[in-house]
Amino acid sequence: MIDLETVRIVLVEPSHPGNIGASARAMKTMGLTQLYLVSPRCYPHAEASARASGADDVLKKAVVCRDLDEALSGVNLVLGTSARARNLEWPTIPPRQAASAIESEPESQVAFIFGRERSGLTNTELERCHYRVHIPSNPQYSSLNLAAAVQLICYELSMVTNNALSEGRNLEPHFPSSREREVYADQMEVERFFIHLEQALEEIDFLDPDNPRQLMRRLKRLFNRTRLFHTEVNLLRGILTAAQRQARLARDR
Amino acid sequence: MIDLETVRIVLVEPSHPGNIGASARAMKTMGLTQLYLVSPRCYPHAEASARASGADDVLKKAVVCRDLDEALSGVNLVLGTSARARNLEWPTIPPRQAASAIESEPESQVAFIFGRERSGLTNTELERCHYRVHIPSNPQYSSLNLAAAVQLICYELSMVTNNALSEGRNLEPHFPSSREREVYADQMEVERFFIHLEQALEEIDFLDPDNPRQLMRRLKRLFNRTRLFHTEVNLLRGILTAAQRQARLARDR
Repeated sequence: MIDLETVRIVLVEPSHPGNIGASARAMKTMGLTQLYLVSPRCYPHAEASARASGADDVLKKAVVCRDLDEALSGVNLVLGTSARARNLEWPTIPPRQAASAIESEPESQVAFIFGRERSGLTNTELERCHYRVHIPSNPQYSSLNLAAAVQLICYELSMVTNNALSEGRNLEPHFPSSREREVYADQMEVERFFIHLEQALEEIDFLDPDNPRQLMRRLKRLFNRTRLFHTEVNLLRGILTAAQRQARLARDR
Repeated sequence: MIDLETVRIVLVEPSHPGNIGASARAMKTMGLTQLYLVSPRCYPHAEASARASGADDVLKKAVVCRDLDEALSGVNLVLGTSARARNLEWPTIPPRQAASAIESEPESQVAFIFGRERSGLTNTELERCHYRVHIPSNPQYSSLNLAAAVQLICYELSMVTNNALSEGRNLEPHFPSSREREVYADQMEVERFFIHLEQALEEIDFLDPDNPRQLMRRLKRLFNRTRLFHTEVNLLRGILTAAQRQARLARDR
């Protein structure tokens, strides 16, 4: 069962205010309330309020953020919806499995990121995500409206909550996970680790800032796939610091 | 598996042309094409075309009918979506089960009926249906937008078609095919990486062989949790080699 209050819907630079309102409505029909808007083009706007219909409460308490960092603050699990295939493969799951993944981490704060209407998420934004969520769709026409995508994701989330259990889903016994209780690192910690990693790779002459190739992207993909624990971030940063010390000793001779 | 060409989406007296266009778009993203409009208030209309976006072909061949009889001609299985509870109890199923019901009747022509934006279906219209389909939703706010309801129903239908089977029901995260085909590292490669990792950590004075604590165990757990790709093992070993070089330079001066 998912506590839907722990799941935020993050719209990155939505351009049409109508889509913001329709997303708020889509969320509320499925029991979600946490809406984050990263640099919306027109907001607040009368059309957003009109399309929100009875969900103006969700709209009213939407958190407007300057950048994605701000929207992801405190979040442990990040999922990004994306229709486009990418050059670099990213772990991809369908919405139903995303809902199961969230269900299995009741202690996590979760963000579902939705990209711009025309261009979706950038590669850099997708790299912030543990999973790319792909809504199965017509290969000849996969252009879901933004609010329609929000509706589908919220629907799948609500299907694993108690409400939906009674109506929509088989009643299966729920067994508490036996996984060891480690705490996942939050997004800010992981971002700082990536910055540290990049610096260290430059210092040991592995990464050439003038020719970075896909190195950081590949490493981010690897470590996001793993879902780093808080203790692991500290361990990895300890290794980076030790390598930097050697590089400085070598340079300072 | 459902042949989506046998399923028509019937909108009864839709009042907003935008919803007609958005429904066409929702259908097409999920592979449906048969749209029937019973006495639409404004149709054709520029807003319908605008909201249809790239689904104008579905919109263009929509069948406009005088009444529900006409829209149901040739249909064997009728399902009606409805949010309201009724005085008269009607066999009610959620969308997912509706999709299974349709799947079990591959020979049938199917109609999914959606009511008016404000008032839904009348009792008389609902009585034409074999099943009432109820989309599980927030009991305090169940007011799905018309096109959003069409989107959810079409999504559940597409999930039982072949396309979605390959993409949406796969239980393991998959990597969409792209230029680059990633291969998982084999076990020997991973073992050699761990040996290399241990050596490098000693050389940069991070790991004390006389007091190894749980370091290697923790790192193995981390890297085994993710399944490393062949290319990632090479990348990580490249980093280790670069760190070792710095350590040797520092020592040799």
